[in-house]
Amino acid sequence: MAGKAYLVGAGPGRPDLITVRGLRVLRRAEVVMYDRLVAKELVDEAPSAAERIDVGKAPGRHALPQDRINQILVERVRAGRRVVRLKGGDPFVLGRGGEEALALAGAGLPFEVVPGVTSAVAAPAYAGVPVTHRGVAHAFAVVTGHRSNEQEVSDWGAVARVPTLVILMGMGRLPQICEGLIRAGRAPDTPAMAVRHGSTDRQRVVQATLATLPIRARELGLGAPATVVVGEVVNLAQDLAWFRPGVPRDQSEAAGTDRPLWHEAALTWKKAVPD
Amino acid sequence: MAGKAYLVGAGPGRPDLITVRGLRVLRRAEVVMYDRLVAKELVDEAPSAAERIDVGKAPGRHALPQDRINQILVERVRAGRRVVRLKGGDPFVLGRGGEEALALAGAGLPFEVVPGVTSAVAAPAYAGVPVTHRGVAHAFAVVTGHRSNEQEVSDWGAVARVPTLVILMGMGRLPQICEGLIRAGRAPDTPAMAVRHGSTDRQRVVQATLATLPIRARELGLGAPATVVVGEVVNLAQDLAWFRPGVPRDQSEAAGTDRPLWHEAALTWKKAVPD
Repeated sequence: MAGKAYLVGAGPGRPDLITVRGLRVLRRAEVVMYDRLVAKELVDEAPSAAERIDVGKAPGRHALPQDRINQILVERVRAGRRVVRLKGGDPFVLGRGGEEALALAGAGLPFEVVPGVTSAVAAPAYAGVPVTHRGVAHAFAVVTGHRSNEQEVSDWGAVARVPTLVILMGMGRLPQICEGLIRAGRAPDTPAMAVRHGSTDRQRVVQATLATLPIRARELGLGAPATVVVGEVVNLAQDLAWFRPGVPRDQSEAAGTDRPLWHEAALTWKKAVPD
Repeated sequence: MAGKAYLVGAGPGRPDLITVRGLRVLRRAEVVMYDRLVAKELVDEAPSAAERIDVGKAPGRHALPQDRINQILVERVRAGRRVVRLKGGDPFVLGRGGEEALALAGAGLPFEVVPGVTSAVAAPAYAGVPVTHRGVAHAFAVVTGHRSNEQEVSDWGAVARVPTLVILMGMGRLPQICEGLIRAGRAPDTPAMAVRHGSTDRQRVVQATLATLPIRARELGLGAPATVVVGEVVNLAQDLAWFRPGVPRDQSEAAGTDRPLWHEAALTWKKAVPD
């Protein structure tokens, strides 16, 4: 049988925020290649016979180089395997999924992209912050915190005026990033927030201003991986912070059962849905 | 029993791009309030006894005013019902979910946000365009096409320099938007694309430049709803356009069966996953 690659977004961290399509292809995988930040519960959903390859991508850690990941992906698909490349968030949001897709396309191999819920939107949402809000922010930008020093000023200038800014992979360089934004014209007292392990039971939040966020995050020991949000929308968390880590989202689901009800739910469709 | 509201992202259009969590709460709903753009297959997944309220939000059509939607939501939850507010894409990406959450919080009622896959990322992905790509775009911005005329120049100036721009709800004012971006300094020959009904079997794509997109879209009769992408990443579609509308994503799933195999798949978890 012909092989195929699936570039699957695993979502922001909480296992049930993967898509139905993503979970389905994962359960039919013959090979799973996954990043360090993907929930273990999801990797466990692959068939036990599936080959599991931890490509180990996590900020600041040793990992397989991107070229090597592309190479393994191409080799396995060429050998006729159904390969799921499971990536944190969405494969095309700062996830280098485009490079993997190009490697596959260049080798003439079939692939499907299964989009995921990006942490850029979901981590703020779990901290009570909508990235857009009528009268407050009609736009948001998502930007990587990784870059070379010479890029610093020009890059922050391109995004500094967008009402809401979401910075991924920025904790390692948080002082430079906040300084870069201030130098590019963003007000130092702009509300700012860092959300660590967003959407999971380990979620932790620090709220401050653009000028004070690096110090506050350091004081509270909040490091990578975290999602940083800058903009007036951060103030909405005061009213909208609905999520309490470690507390079941539905009391009714947890009460009186040894395991949560949703574990038992059969997630089949009632009617035929087009593939 | 105490009522609760779930602000659920339905995803970009294809039913199986909803999250596992979203499908689960939908299947336990007592009331479903849904927008016009949400797939019928998803609304069908609610229990047959559930109250269904079409709030009819679609660009340029008559719909319930937002205040009235907030009011119904609050009333039903206060009456002890489990209410799913099913919204296209993600509830907090230009979906006015923040306003609904504020209405609930103001009334002292519990709610949960279930993030969704946003069309801003998934529609381009289904057209072969990664919104970020190493060496091409280290950032993307998502912005609404709706606005008053006096906002026009200043607003486009704030986003015009972001490498990738995604405009939602922009088809009705596409000439003004493209002109606004060009006047704000974006090059007229920047690659641009409109994706209509992204991710569904009705998907249609127009590729042009920032200067020519409005004319090309009109020539080809491509109207709302569509996702507009502007930036060099659009050129990647040449190599990465993997999706063919109407063709099953997996030949193996469709061949030799009356209904697709995935219809039968039981999407329960192997191990307990924390709620």
